[in-house]
Amino acid sequence: MRAVVWQGPELVRVDDVPAPELRDPDDAILRVTTTAICGSDLHLVRGKLPRVRPGTVIGHEFCGEVLAVGPGVRRHRPGDRCVAAMYTACGRCPSCLGGRHPQCQSYAMFGCGALFGDLDGGQAEQVRVPCADMTLAPVPPALADVEALFVGDILATAYTACVEAAIGAGETVAVVGCGPVGQLIIACCQLFAPGPVFAVDPVPDRLAQAARLGAIPLDGTGDVRRALREHTGGPRATVVLEAVGSAAALETAWRLVDTGGRVILVGLLVDEPWPESCGQTWLRTLTVRSVLGRPYTHRDTLLRLIGQGRLRPAAVVSETRPLEEAPLAYQRLLARTTAKVLLRP
Amino acid sequence: MRAVVWQGPELVRVDDVPAPELRDPDDAILRVTTTAICGSDLHLVRGKLPRVRPGTVIGHEFCGEVLAVGPGVRRHRPGDRCVAAMYTACGRCPSCLGGRHPQCQSYAMFGCGALFGDLDGGQAEQVRVPCADMTLAPVPPALADVEALFVGDILATAYTACVEAAIGAGETVAVVGCGPVGQLIIACCQLFAPGPVFAVDPVPDRLAQAARLGAIPLDGTGDVRRALREHTGGPRATVVLEAVGSAAALETAWRLVDTGGRVILVGLLVDEPWPESCGQTWLRTLTVRSVLGRPYTHRDTLLRLIGQGRLRPAAVVSETRPLEEAPLAYQRLLARTTAKVLLRP
Amino acid sequence: MRAVVWQGPELVRVDDVPAPELRDPDDAILRVTTTAICGSDLHLVRGKLPRVRPGTVIGHEFCGEVLAVGPGVRRHRPGDRCVAAMYTACGRCPSCLGGRHPQCQSYAMFGCGALFGDLDGGQAEQVRVPCADMTLAPVPPALADVEALFVGDILATAYTACVEAAIGAGETVAVVGCGPVGQLIIACCQLFAPGPVFAVDPVPDRLAQAARLGAIPLDGTGDVRRALREHTGGPRATVVLEAVGSAAALETAWRLVDTGGRVILVGLLVDEPWPESCGQTWLRTLTVRSVLGRPYTHRDTLLRLIGQGRLRPAAVVSETRPLEEAPLAYQRLLARTTAKVLLRP
Amino acid sequence: MRAVVWQGPELVRVDDVPAPELRDPDDAILRVTTTAICGSDLHLVRGKLPRVRPGTVIGHEFCGEVLAVGPGVRRHRPGDRCVAAMYTACGRCPSCLGGRHPQCQSYAMFGCGALFGDLDGGQAEQVRVPCADMTLAPVPPALADVEALFVGDILATAYTACVEAAIGAGETVAVVGCGPVGQLIIACCQLFAPGPVFAVDPVPDRLAQAARLGAIPLDGTGDVRRALREHTGGPRATVVLEAVGSAAALETAWRLVDTGGRVILVGLLVDEPWPESCGQTWLRTLTVRSVLGRPYTHRDTLLRLIGQGRLRPAAVVSETRPLEEAPLAYQRLLARTTAKVLLRP
Repeated sequence: MRAVVWQGPELVRVDDVPAPELRDPDDAILRVTTTAICGSDLHLVRGKLPRVRPGTVIGHEFCGEVLAVGPGVRRHRPGDRCVAAMYTACGRCPSCLGGRHPQCQSYAMFGCGALFGDLDGGQAEQVRVPCADMTLAPVPPALADVEALFVGDILATAYTACVEAAIGAGETVAVVGCGPVGQLIIACCQLFAPGPVFAVDPVPDRLAQAARLGAIPLDGTGDVRRALREHTGGPRATVVLEAVGSAAALETAWRLVDTGGRVILVGLLVDEPWPESCGQTWLRTLTVRSVLGRPYTHRDTLLRLIGQGRLRPAAVVSETRPLEEAPLAYQRLLARTTAKVLLRP
Repeated sequence: MRAVVWQGPELVRVDDVPAPELRDPDDAILRVTTTAICGSDLHLVRGKLPRVRPGTVIGHEFCGEVLAVGPGVRRHRPGDRCVAAMYTACGRCPSCLGGRHPQCQSYAMFGCGALFGDLDGGQAEQVRVPCADMTLAPVPPALADVEALFVGDILATAYTACVEAAIGAGETVAVVGCGPVGQLIIACCQLFAPGPVFAVDPVPDRLAQAARLGAIPLDGTGDVRRALREHTGGPRATVVLEAVGSAAALETAWRLVDTGGRVILVGLLVDEPWPESCGQTWLRTLTVRSVLGRPYTHRDTLLRLIGQGRLRPAAVVSETRPLEEAPLAYQRLLARTTAKVLLRP
Repeated sequence: MRAVVWQGPELVRVDDVPAPELRDPDDAILRVTTTAICGSDLHLVRGKLPRVRPGTVIGHEFCGEVLAVGPGVRRHRPGDRCVAAMYTACGRCPSCLGGRHPQCQSYAMFGCGALFGDLDGGQAEQVRVPCADMTLAPVPPALADVEALFVGDILATAYTACVEAAIGAGETVAVVGCGPVGQLIIACCQLFAPGPVFAVDPVPDRLAQAARLGAIPLDGTGDVRRALREHTGGPRATVVLEAVGSAAALETAWRLVDTGGRVILVGLLVDEPWPESCGQTWLRTLTVRSVLGRPYTHRDTLLRLIGQGRLRPAAVVSETRPLEEAPLAYQRLLARTTAKVLLRP
Repeated sequence: MRAVVWQGPELVRVDDVPAPELRDPDDAILRVTTTAICGSDLHLVRGKLPRVRPGTVIGHEFCGEVLAVGPGVRRHRPGDRCVAAMYTACGRCPSCLGGRHPQCQSYAMFGCGALFGDLDGGQAEQVRVPCADMTLAPVPPALADVEALFVGDILATAYTACVEAAIGAGETVAVVGCGPVGQLIIACCQLFAPGPVFAVDPVPDRLAQAARLGAIPLDGTGDVRRALREHTGGPRATVVLEAVGSAAALETAWRLVDTGGRVILVGLLVDEPWPESCGQTWLRTLTVRSVLGRPYTHRDTLLRLIGQGRLRPAAVVSETRPLEEAPLAYQRLLARTTAKVLLRP
C-alpha cells in the first residue's frame, strides 16, 4: 500500500510499504479515508523528535472505514466509519479508569517513533489500530470525515486546554498563536462564556480568521501587552493559552497574563527557556499548566457539540490533497504557505 | 457445583447447579473463595424485587481465583486473585468513558434477576464474570479476601456517598443507620476531615461500633434531633446520609438536616413516601441526592486506602460461615441477630 | 413619599407614607428610579406569605440613585447609581465569607414582611438600604436601569440555578415554565454550551419568546414527555429546571428527567406535594436541588456578561408603568395578561 | 509603647514608638497579647524586601484584645479577643466577593513596608487594624492565643496550599522543607486522606518532628529521589509542596514530582531560577502553582478544625519570649537555632 514515510530530516516520501495485518486480537485494520497533518508532525519531520527510525509511517490524525477486526473487538465491525484517538489506551486499568490514559501500559502514539511506542501512523491507505474498541469511536452518520476527524487530536487538545484553564464566565482570555490549534482554542473558549478573547499572531490572515471566530485580534509584531490593556482599560488576561510552542510565544504569554492568572501551555515544547525567573512567577502568583489532549475524556462531548453545530472544526482546514501529494503538503506547511492540510488516500 | 439459590419468598437453599461455562470471549470463570451477603440480598430474598426467577443463583459481593478466561480477556489469567464489581460494564462506550457505568449496554447486576440483566450471582463455588477485564480487579497480594471484598459493592457505595455529599472539612454530619453500610459510611466520612459525625441507630451494639469508628452515637429510639442539637449547641447537620432504606429512616434524616443542607439517600428504597412535602423541602433549600455505588470510579483509590491502613472494612464482618450454611446465615440476618456474614464456598 | 403598600389579600394601593430615614450607620437611602414586580410579589399580594403586616411597603427588585449615606458607608456616595440585592447581608461574618449569605445575622429580604426581617421594600420613591456597602452594587455607566436591575434577583436566581445544575457541554436540558424567570434560565443556560434546551409552557406567546432565545418549544398542554423524546430520539433531559412553583410543574419536571438526572427547583414552593414517592425517585437515581438566588456571589459576573452583550435580561420586560399605576400592574399580572412589569416612581 | 522596629539590614530593635490611634472609622486598636515571627519577617530583616523604611514596626501574625473601635466597626467591641489576618481587605468589593482578597483596593500587609501598603505591624504592644470587621476574627473562648494565632497567616497558607494542590485520597505527596510552614503543610495534608507523605529536610530534628506528624522523613542531604522511589516501589510524588523558598528546594521539588504531577510553590521566592527548562516541564506535563495564603476564605474552617482537635498548630512553636527579647529571637532564627518564636508584649 501507499504511505507517507519519514526518511530523515525534512525528507518525506510516499512509498510502497507492506499493508498492515491484524497482530493482536484487539486490533482493527482501518482503511483511511481522511488524514491530517498535525503541527507536531512538522517537528518530527524536521528531525526534532528523538528515536524515530527512517521508514516510519507517520500521522496520528485519521479516520476511515473498518476493514477487519481481531476476535477481541466488540464495538466495531467491518464497514463501520470510525475516527481514531491520537494515542492508544486499554480503558480498563487503574490509569485509564482514573482518566490518566497516557499512563496506560498500552499507550502508544501513532506515527511518532520508538519513544512513543513505535506504532505506524495513519497517513497511509491503511493502518493497524490496537485496542480498537477504545481507540476508535464511531463517526455519527450525519458528520463528514472532516467534521469528526479532529476529535482525535487537535480539537480534543484545544478543548482540554479550555477545560483545564477553568475559564470562568466573563473572564478575559488571551490566545497566543492562531494556527489550527489556536483557532480551535478560540472556538472552544466560546463554550465557556468568556469575556473578551484576544488572539495574538503576526500573520494578518490568521488574525482575520481569529476575528471571524469572535476574538479580538492583536498584531503579534507590535506591543501586544499595551494593545490588550488599551482594550480592557488596564487589566491583563486572567487566562493565557500558548498555542505555538516557541520561546517567543512564551514571552508573549507571560507579558499578557495578569497577577494571579493562569498560563496554559498547549504548544509542543522541548527545551525552550522560561521567560522569567521562578521567583518572579511566584511573586505574580501565577499558575502554569501543561496540557496534553484527552480525546477519550472529551471525544463524546465534542462529537455532540459538532453535531449540534456549536463547534465547526472543519473551518481550520486550508487545503485538501491526495495522499500522493504529501511531500508537497509538508513543504508548504514548513514554508508556512498553508495552515492545515488534509490528505485523502 | 454448590450454589445459593433463591426458590421463592424467604426460601433460600444451597443446591447443586451446573457449573458455569465461558460463553462470551470476554468472560472469565472465577472460583469464589469469599462471598458476602449484602443488605439488598435480604430485600431479594423477601421477594421485594420483581422478576426474579426461582432457581436464580444470588450474590453480588465476591472475590476469588480466576479459573479460566475467554480469548478476549487480557488483564487476567488463571490463578489470579480478583475481586468483582457488583455490576458489569464494558469500559469503552460513551457511558463508561463518561463515568456513567450503570448506563452501559453491558450493564448487568450479579444475582438480582431479570430486571438487572439476568446474571447468576457469586454465592456459589464458581461464577461466570462477563467483561472480565473490567469487572474484575486484581487483589493486591498484601490484602486478604475480606479486606478487598467490599470495594466491589458496599465500600464503594459508602465512599461514593461521601464523595457525592461533598463533605467539607469541619462540617457536621449525621449517618442514619449503623448497619454494615452505615459503618462504612462513618469510616469513609473520616477521610474528609469532618466535624462531629453523629450516628443514629436503635441497636446499642451498632451504636457502640459506630462510636469505635469515631462517631457520636445517638439512640434512635429517643428524640435524636434534640440530642444532636444539644451536642452542637443548636445547628443541625449540614450533611445527612440515610443508610437504612426505610420510611422511618427518611423521617429521621429530614429531622436532622439543617436549612440549606444535603440529604444523601444510600439505602435501597422502593416506594417509601417522602417525610415532608416538596414545598417544605424547597423552603428549607435542601438538596436530595440518590446514590448508586461507583466501584469502577473508586475501586483503585479504595484498594490503596485499605493497603495504607486508612480504611479497615473487614471490621464490619460479624461472622464467617461455610457456603453450606447460607440458609442459616440468611435466617440470622432476617432476624437481625447478625450484621454482615461472609460465606466460604 | 409615594409607595406601593400591601393592605390585605389582593389589595395593593399606592399610598403616602413617611420617607425613610437613615437609622443605622451602614444605611443608605436610595431614590428609586426603576423597580420591578417579581413573581413572588404576587404570592405575597395573594396573601400566601405569613406574617405580613398590612401597610408594608413591598418590592425587592429596584435600582436608583443614592440620596444619603450613614457614616459607616464607604463604597457609595450620594449621586451614585446602584442596584440592590434582594436581601441584605453583612459580608464579613463566617456565613458570608463562606458564601452562605442567607444565613447571615443581618439577612433581611426587602418588602416581604416579618418572616423575612420586616424591611420595607423598594416599590416606592425612596427606600432605606441596610448594609449599603454590601447590598448595593454600582451600576456600570454604560448600562441602563433595566439592563442592570435583575442582577439583584431574578437574573441572579436564574444564573444560580444553572450553576448549581452544573450543566455540562452538550447536555439535554428542559426548562418548565417560560415566565420571566424561565426566560432568564433559558438565556443563562446558553452560557454553558448545552445541547438542546427544551422549554415547556402552555402559553403560545411565552413559547415563542423561548424559541427566540434558542429553546425548542414544547406545548405544555400536550404530552411533553413524548414530544421531547421524539426530538432526542429517546433519552429525556439530564437536567430539568422547574421555574413555575406549582404541583403541575413538578409533575412535568419529574416526567421529563432521565434516569440519573437532576431536577432543579427554582419556582417558589410552599407545600406542594412530590410527584412520585421518595423510593421511586431513588430508584431513578435522581438528584433534587432547591435553589435560592445568590446575587452577592454572581452579581459581578452578571454585570460583566450584560456589559459584554452575552445576556440581555431587559428582553423579559413586557411593560413599564408609572409607580402610581402599580395596582393596575398587579391586576394585569394576576390575570396573566402581562409578564414582567417595571414601575417608575 | 514598645514595638519591634526594623532599622536596617539585620538590625532589629525594640523601641519606644507612639501608640497607634484610630484613623479611619473602620479601624480598631488591638492590644497585642501574642505575636509570632514569620519566615518572611526574616527576609525583610535581611533587607531582601524593597521599599521598607527604617523605623517600620514589623510583624503580621498577632492576636490580642480589642482596645478601641472606630464608629464603623460592628462585629467587635473593646474587650473582645481577636486574631488578625496577615493582610487587610474590605470584604465587599467585587474582588473580595470573588475570593480575590489580595486584589482588594484596601489590601495592605501588616509590617512589610511601602510595597505592601505601608501599614505598621503587630510585633508591638498595640497595633492599628484597618477594616477591623473583616481583618479581625473572634478567637473562640476555648482556644488559647497560640492555638488560634496561625489562622491569620502560616496555617492559612499551609491549608490553602493543600486545597489548591487538590490532594486526592491515597495520593503520594512530598513536602520539601520542614520548618514551621512545612510542618503545618504536613498536618493539613492529613485532612485529605493522602497516601504516603514524604518530608524532606537536612535537619534531623525537623525530620523527627515531621515523622511525629505522620510523614516519612527523607534526609535532604542524601539522594531523596532515590530514597522516595525505594519507598513507593518506583513512582514519584504526584503532588510536591515546596515550603522553603530557595533554588535548592526548587531543584528537589522538580526531582521528586512524577510525570503529570503538580508542584505547589509556597515558600517566599524573589528571583530564584527554575530547575529545568520550560520545555522539559511541559514534556513532563507538570502543573506549577504559586500559593498565597487565603485567611479570609479558610479562617472559619481552620478555627473549627482546631477546636475539634484535628489540627494542633501550636506544636510548631519552639520558644516563647517577652517582646523585649525580639532582637535575640531574630538572631536565633537567622542562626537557625530555633524554628518558630512567639513574642509576648
